[in-house]
Amino acid sequence: MLLEHIQQPEDLKRLTLEQLEPLAAEIRQFLVENLSVTGGHLAPNLGVVELTLALHYLFDSPQDKFIFDVGHQSYVHKMLTGRMGKFNTLRKYKGLCGFVKRSESEHDVWEAGHSSTSLSAAMGMAVARDLSGGSNRVIALIGDGALTGGMALEALNHIGHEQRKLMVVLNDNEMSIAPNVGALSNYLARIRSDRHYVKAKEEVEHLIKKIPAIGGTLAKTAERVKDSFKYLVVPGVWFEELGFTYFGPVDGHNIQLLMETLRQADKVNGPVVVHVITRKGKGYSHAEADSHKWHGASAYKIESGQMLKSVGPPMYTEVFGSTLIELAKQDKRIVAVTPAMPGGSGLTGFAKAYPDRMFDVGIAEQHAATFCAGLAAEGLKPIYAVYSTFMQRAYDQIVHDICRANLNVTFAIDRAGFVGPDGETHHGVFDIAYLRSIPNIVVMMPKDENELRHMMKTALDYNEGPIAYRYPRINGLGVPLDETLEAIPIGTWEVVRPGADAAILAVGPMIPVALEAAEALAKEGVQVRVVNARFIKPMDEAMLVQLAKEDIPVVTLEEGAAMGGFGSGVLEFYSLQSIYGMRIKVIGVPDYFVEHGSVKEQYEEVGLTAERVITDINALVPRRRQRA
Amino acid sequence: MLLEHIQQPEDLKRLTLEQLEPLAAEIRQFLVENLSVTGGHLAPNLGVVELTLALHYLFDSPQDKFIFDVGHQSYVHKMLTGRMGKFNTLRKYKGLCGFVKRSESEHDVWEAGHSSTSLSAAMGMAVARDLSGGSNRVIALIGDGALTGGMALEALNHIGHEQRKLMVVLNDNEMSIAPNVGALSNYLARIRSDRHYVKAKEEVEHLIKKIPAIGGTLAKTAERVKDSFKYLVVPGVWFEELGFTYFGPVDGHNIQLLMETLRQADKVNGPVVVHVITRKGKGYSHAEADSHKWHGASAYKIESGQMLKSVGPPMYTEVFGSTLIELAKQDKRIVAVTPAMPGGSGLTGFAKAYPDRMFDVGIAEQHAATFCAGLAAEGLKPIYAVYSTFMQRAYDQIVHDICRANLNVTFAIDRAGFVGPDGETHHGVFDIAYLRSIPNIVVMMPKDENELRHMMKTALDYNEGPIAYRYPRINGLGVPLDETLEAIPIGTWEVVRPGADAAILAVGPMIPVALEAAEALAKEGVQVRVVNARFIKPMDEAMLVQLAKEDIPVVTLEEGAAMGGFGSGVLEFYSLQSIYGMRIKVIGVPDYFVEHGSVKEQYEEVGLTAERVITDINALVPRRRQRA
Repeated sequence: MLLEHIQQPEDLKRLTLEQLEPLAAEIRQFLVENLSVTGGHLAPNLGVVELTLALHYLFDSPQDKFIFDVGHQSYVHKMLTGRMGKFNTLRKYKGLCGFVKRSESEHDVWEAGHSSTSLSAAMGMAVARDLSGGSNRVIALIGDGALTGGMALEALNHIGHEQRKLMVVLNDNEMSIAPNVGALSNYLARIRSDRHYVKAKEEVEHLIKKIPAIGGTLAKTAERVKDSFKYLVVPGVWFEELGFTYFGPVDGHNIQLLMETLRQADKVNGPVVVHVITRKGKGYSHAEADSHKWHGASAYKIESGQMLKSVGPPMYTEVFGSTLIELAKQDKRIVAVTPAMPGGSGLTGFAKAYPDRMFDVGIAEQHAATFCAGLAAEGLKPIYAVYSTFMQRAYDQIVHDICRANLNVTFAIDRAGFVGPDGETHHGVFDIAYLRSIPNIVVMMPKDENELRHMMKTALDYNEGPIAYRYPRINGLGVPLDETLEAIPIGTWEVVRPGADAAILAVGPMIPVALEAAEALAKEGVQVRVVNARFIKPMDEAMLVQLAKEDIPVVTLEEGAAMGGFGSGVLEFYSLQSIYGMRIKVIGVPDYFVEHGSVKEQYEEVGLTAERVITDINALVPRRRQRA
Repeated sequence: MLLEHIQQPEDLKRLTLEQLEPLAAEIRQFLVENLSVTGGHLAPNLGVVELTLALHYLFDSPQDKFIFDVGHQSYVHKMLTGRMGKFNTLRKYKGLCGFVKRSESEHDVWEAGHSSTSLSAAMGMAVARDLSGGSNRVIALIGDGALTGGMALEALNHIGHEQRKLMVVLNDNEMSIAPNVGALSNYLARIRSDRHYVKAKEEVEHLIKKIPAIGGTLAKTAERVKDSFKYLVVPGVWFEELGFTYFGPVDGHNIQLLMETLRQADKVNGPVVVHVITRKGKGYSHAEADSHKWHGASAYKIESGQMLKSVGPPMYTEVFGSTLIELAKQDKRIVAVTPAMPGGSGLTGFAKAYPDRMFDVGIAEQHAATFCAGLAAEGLKPIYAVYSTFMQRAYDQIVHDICRANLNVTFAIDRAGFVGPDGETHHGVFDIAYLRSIPNIVVMMPKDENELRHMMKTALDYNEGPIAYRYPRINGLGVPLDETLEAIPIGTWEVVRPGADAAILAVGPMIPVALEAAEALAKEGVQVRVVNARFIKPMDEAMLVQLAKEDIPVVTLEEGAAMGGFGSGVLEFYSLQSIYGMRIKVIGVPDYFVEHGSVKEQYEEVGLTAERVITDINALVPRRRQRA
């Protein structure tokens, strides 16, 4: 076993070149075995074993900066930098992070989670190096999917212009999470597949050398043409035109070839792109066969590749997907738009049923939003299906192109609230706060999967501007699903449990928490009303006025940033109405970034629990309790 | 005069080709004369006179969709679509909008203000057309500067992939507002200037035809090479590789040539790029000579080109610029980053003084933010100078790359609050709300330009994470500027006027409004304390507790969205502290988009006035007033 002797990159450098292939095999075995227990991003990491080995073998982390785009492909890097022993805690509470994490190691110089940030970060580090007179390398590893994110393209434009020494390793596996779409992806595919492309340069040079007999003017032309070939007839012309020197494509599983190419690229004193072809899931047959499914795996049986699924009612995501097919059958205006998450967003069935009304635009959240605005401006009803955390990328487009223009775009916001093991980069805890302050938008969250269906109908029937429904990354409650869908009157809440001593205004998955607290308090003689605050904006003002008339204490409960969130909206309403003296306690996510773990652990850490609600209500209704 | 007969595009189509040149001259005269009185985006519109004429002459608006990126180059379009008579109200309250406006005309099919949205919108409209079986054209006009915005590049990637009929007119004037930077811009410059490039295709074809004598294998190679030239050796190879058919470059002031090229491009049944070279300010010598200055002009004298400047104390922007130079002298860690706004952000002097520490990254707000994060990760102190409204584009990067990683990035947020004539797309009214809900960031706003200087020192000395100071697009108050700069203790407010009957917590430019109200109320016997709430986050908790102890009514006053803004923060604080019964009135920007006009008119429309504050305070202190 070679692996057990590798604690730091220096240990790796002591191996011979010949030992790297068997080491790669050991690393793959380690990953397949460990992740079969913990789950994790198996396929992406199996794809970059040789690449990570080559980088650590040739270059000197942490002086040289390795910047992993997204960061879920950093497991091999973690193994080579002293963290092999922690893989049993991968993505668990207080355990090894599933992404790059600066607090874990000096070798982790850049953190991410969202895609397409690595080139900008690399540019910052390259400039900082040059200003301080340093000589370290800056190396960004980015996938072909992430490259189409607008900010990565902005960075290419800047890097190519500045001409500083910087290496972009393009990890081309033809996938982001789903197979990539887009013109750039097509271009990369042409480079990969077309020998013609790859060979053109040498052939043409050969050709031109053979034309000595042709006279004066033409010879000059030939010379000029030869010149232009230097940057035109190479496979990476698209990158070369942007100021990069292009190397590749090179087989990312041929470690000798890979190292030779990286060595050559390292000699260039300017920006380079090294185009590396890898296979997601490489070396584990099940993952190679379906790298999409194995992108982020739950625990599995190694032999059969059978993943251990949690059993339970359908996820909200699935209910969204099947309901959208139903609605699309009745209403031809519906089209679905996803930024590279067709599977994760539950749109696989829709894509099969309505291929011409399904648009996967690649990792391009901004374009996706304004593309929806264009569709809506022409009378369609686009559904922008997006994870809450990734929707952050489209904030300006939501403000400027959708809400300002008041267009009929529907947002299906998945992964609202805590997401568990993906941790702080992926929680959907800001969308309530940032959407609520934008004029013209309606924001909803259902109490269960059946209500989600009615909300989808509500959104479809609503033609007065943008509307959003948000739902969590969990199983539904298993409630029966109504066959007939009816629009819910905009801005109306629902009392789900009566009570006159206090009221809890709860949003989405916090309703069961509120009910648990109410039941416990009932035993102590305190009768708590629980309200399903299904409209976050606009709120049920009649009900709020009624609460003021009754003058009972109010607790607001949401799985989102407490600063500027739903609870703040309740406080604002009473201030606006000049209603003073209400006792209102706002409970939400406190003002810090919550790390990875299970959702339950995250709830407990921040106090989104029945116990906390009980304590707060007891503090708010002391007299009545003393009387009881 | 031809112009007076043009009320609609049909009138234009009745003219002969020969009449278009004299018409162009008349249009230029109209623009130069009218804008000399109202001010406006003169240079961009002078640059697109022939282009706009050609589009309306050849194609059929509004069935054909003309989508203007940003939209400040739509004046000629407005003139040709029945709005000539309204140019005396340009950018004035209730007057003609300076951008495209759907409520003004059926010919205005897409609204913007921020750049780089047109391609996504066009894609949406093209898909909507295809799904409904329509046959209209979709034509996006985008500048070479706007093209580098990430979302435009995302859109290129999608459009090239989908291969629908769609025309991109690339209006290449080598400028966004400032001269463009970036590799793509360099590439366009090569196309423009390099005859070699333009001629290569025909020359090579000629060359290859001349090689009949060379035998078997090589002939085949030649054939193959010839093939590759189809898409390799054309000037627009970068676009061709993305799936577009490229036409150009064509002189945008040669109307015959322009129309011929557009006609050819229109025959392609797929996405095309028409690369048009124009000159900003064309036809008005002063604007041609300095198109940067004449991008957005104030009123001017036509003969001399002298702009009428408002006199007064230096703008906040200028104070920021000069202070940054002072600080940079003392602290080598300082670098400045701007997304294409070096002049507007007051960085012209800094760029001259410290060219190696100045980074204009082009229209690339996202990259700019994460580039700053990379710089900060390596120990520098980057200052991201950006307009509030454009910072919206970097929301996710602020959350994910800067605040989550808690990096020492400083935000210099210009144009905070209302911006006047640019109107609803440009107001900086959301940043308080959306920044406040993000953990780890400090947000400040000064009461005057002297305090801005101290805040800049505060930010420089602060090394515990991101920090922002925001300032308005107005002149300072003309206060003396302290020579020695001192850091202000984080989270401390300042009482600027004593009073025990009520308190106003005012932010930035609202402090003079608060003082005016307090003085008026003092005459009625109501003594109002005015607090400079210079830290929006974190707040001065000691002072808030003190207010609760005194139990006096509180008014919060800010020039930002009331929903989720500073006032909400005050309400939240008391809820968190279980302090109930306070009478707090939140005054801010109400929940709708406020249109163009003067800042004063905007203040009056939304009630950010002393009168409104007086009314609210009178309502809050009724007993005392009755007693008095």
